[in-house]
Amino acid sequence: MDNTVKQLAILGSTGSIGQQTLEVVRALPHRFQVVGLTAGKNLDLLAKQINEFKPRFVYYQDKRGLADAEYELLSLEDIASHPQVDTVVIATSGKSGLSPTLAAVKAGKNVALANKESLVMAGEIITNEAKLNAAQILPIDSEHSAIWQCLRGETQPAAQLILTASGGPFRHYSPAELYGVTARQALRHPSWQMGRKVTIDSATLMNKGLEIIEARWLFDIPIDNIRVLIHPQSIIHSMVEFIDGSTKAQLSHPDMRLPIQYALSYPERLPNPRLPRLDWSNIENLTFEQPDFDTFPCLKLAIEAGKKGETYPAVLCAADEVAVELFLSQRIKFTDIARLVEQTLEEHEAIAHPTLEEIMAADAWAREKIMQFITGDNR
Amino acid sequence: MDNTVKQLAILGSTGSIGQQTLEVVRALPHRFQVVGLTAGKNLDLLAKQINEFKPRFVYYQDKRGLADAEYELLSLEDIASHPQVDTVVIATSGKSGLSPTLAAVKAGKNVALANKESLVMAGEIITNEAKLNAAQILPIDSEHSAIWQCLRGETQPAAQLILTASGGPFRHYSPAELYGVTARQALRHPSWQMGRKVTIDSATLMNKGLEIIEARWLFDIPIDNIRVLIHPQSIIHSMVEFIDGSTKAQLSHPDMRLPIQYALSYPERLPNPRLPRLDWSNIENLTFEQPDFDTFPCLKLAIEAGKKGETYPAVLCAADEVAVELFLSQRIKFTDIARLVEQTLEEHEAIAHPTLEEIMAADAWAREKIMQFITGDNR
Repeated sequence: MDNTVKQLAILGSTGSIGQQTLEVVRALPHRFQVVGLTAGKNLDLLAKQINEFKPRFVYYQDKRGLADAEYELLSLEDIASHPQVDTVVIATSGKSGLSPTLAAVKAGKNVALANKESLVMAGEIITNEAKLNAAQILPIDSEHSAIWQCLRGETQPAAQLILTASGGPFRHYSPAELYGVTARQALRHPSWQMGRKVTIDSATLMNKGLEIIEARWLFDIPIDNIRVLIHPQSIIHSMVEFIDGSTKAQLSHPDMRLPIQYALSYPERLPNPRLPRLDWSNIENLTFEQPDFDTFPCLKLAIEAGKKGETYPAVLCAADEVAVELFLSQRIKFTDIARLVEQTLEEHEAIAHPTLEEIMAADAWAREKIMQFITGDNR
Repeated sequence: MDNTVKQLAILGSTGSIGQQTLEVVRALPHRFQVVGLTAGKNLDLLAKQINEFKPRFVYYQDKRGLADAEYELLSLEDIASHPQVDTVVIATSGKSGLSPTLAAVKAGKNVALANKESLVMAGEIITNEAKLNAAQILPIDSEHSAIWQCLRGETQPAAQLILTASGGPFRHYSPAELYGVTARQALRHPSWQMGRKVTIDSATLMNKGLEIIEARWLFDIPIDNIRVLIHPQSIIHSMVEFIDGSTKAQLSHPDMRLPIQYALSYPERLPNPRLPRLDWSNIENLTFEQPDFDTFPCLKLAIEAGKKGETYPAVLCAADEVAVELFLSQRIKFTDIARLVEQTLEEHEAIAHPTLEEIMAADAWAREKIMQFITGDNR
């Protein structure tokens, strides 16, 4: 047993994953100490967190600034690579996670990764740098944590990864019903408490598509060997099939604090009385369905972009990010998300083995392109 | 990867597990070689197996004997401990597995154990000898194989083992309906192909009770931390809950060849195209129920005997073996099995930390006792 106190930097501490990470720290104060906190514009919550956890390093985007300062203001990258930090939790959303993830990996940190975009956009670069610098990427997503736990102690490659998906709130909707879905409806997720972007991505199944690409990099497995299974109860978080036909699954009550804690405490498991346990006297039924690729084209688009590789996944991410924002601000319909992402991918001229600059350029191109489509649409 | 050919002795090769072990060898002839085969009275099948696998050592109980002999006739114990044997498969049923298991463990062999009675009757002696002689006990039962696979790579004790049970063919029967159950009905098991004794034990849930006692020894965990969950589809073969609340499960098509192969190939997993794989497009539903201890008192009797320890589990085993035989020969009713086992346990005067001789004496006492009850009943 390792009884040292791990020094954590939590990037995106005011978001959903950031707050739940702090709940884990609160429950296990003898094992984890917060040395860095960063936020975007939610300064009120950040101030409270600073007051409670007394980090040495802070970053925030908002220009207003905080009043008193018993901490050092550093950039995201400097916090992520600081010698006093053992584990960096990347809980920012969107492409803002990419640069600090790379900084942390280059500094050989343990990187507890909740940000999907980093690996989707720049999986090749990040995993190569992780190998070069002996950095460990510890997945926080419940699906990837499940796969990671199932692979624990196994010495041979998996035959197949089975990513489970709740299917979102609209899994039996017809195309016509999906067309009429409002942002408010889409923000109600049946099983998980999550941020707005991830919740919409769960409803379109784009989230599952991004997870496939992420899994491809995390576990070094071809996308053809990753499949999706709809499992509405969100009890089995994913599965691994081995070459002998044996399958292992990881199960728990759907609560992000468990995969967060596992990534932070790894390789140890820690008892935490605040985490709910499965109560088998209340579980009568686990159900499974095949995903409907026609009704949820985002899943297909992501798989195709992941297989093609190059700058396609970056374009997929960027286009989806903009499309989701447009949907949330009621400028486009739910079904337009997939349509606009598809159009953007179709017009993209990809670059193989892109540099970080080329990835960022593809990202910028996609954001501009999708807005052109919209302006064209509105004419 | 280990490319040596493992030398196997298969004790009980003509039984259900023995035959399926030979199917695994047939599918992977470059990895396994049969050096020993033993049988009871099914000489016809044994002769065929000898002809096909050309073992060097053979044992059989039947006095008729086999005609030609290009092999050495040895005792079960001598085969189980022979220097030319790497792995001993104990696929005999009942207490006849005990002595060769002990011989194999004392010789420091890998012991692939399908025989429940060995550990149930003499778990303390066998696990102590295994530690002393660096012998590995590799479980073949699907439930214990599942737990063993879930524990793979984990470095901390499990919080809870969850043994799944199909529930047998009578899981929603009333006590009155159970009273009328015939041997023919009981021999039809919904999911597994098994021997007659195990099939009846599955129908009474005694089998699950014996597995609890076995798990207690295999995984060094208190019986209070082992529970049973009815899962009629037999897809999840068992689960482990860890101290952080995370649960792992092992799943596969119900086919004994997989756990047999895993025990033989461990720590490696081998591809075997003859093993069926789970087809998730055909699995819509996994269901779970709590066991009904009142309707299936054998489960409760086994748990109590396991907790008390001493010579109680040996008496449980012996009384159950006789009771099942009596039921199969239509001398007692289905519900009499539990009643007779309970009466025998009640009259037993147990011995703590028994020697092998004391265990065998308790076994003999129980067999005699239960026959006295029967004779009394028939008067």
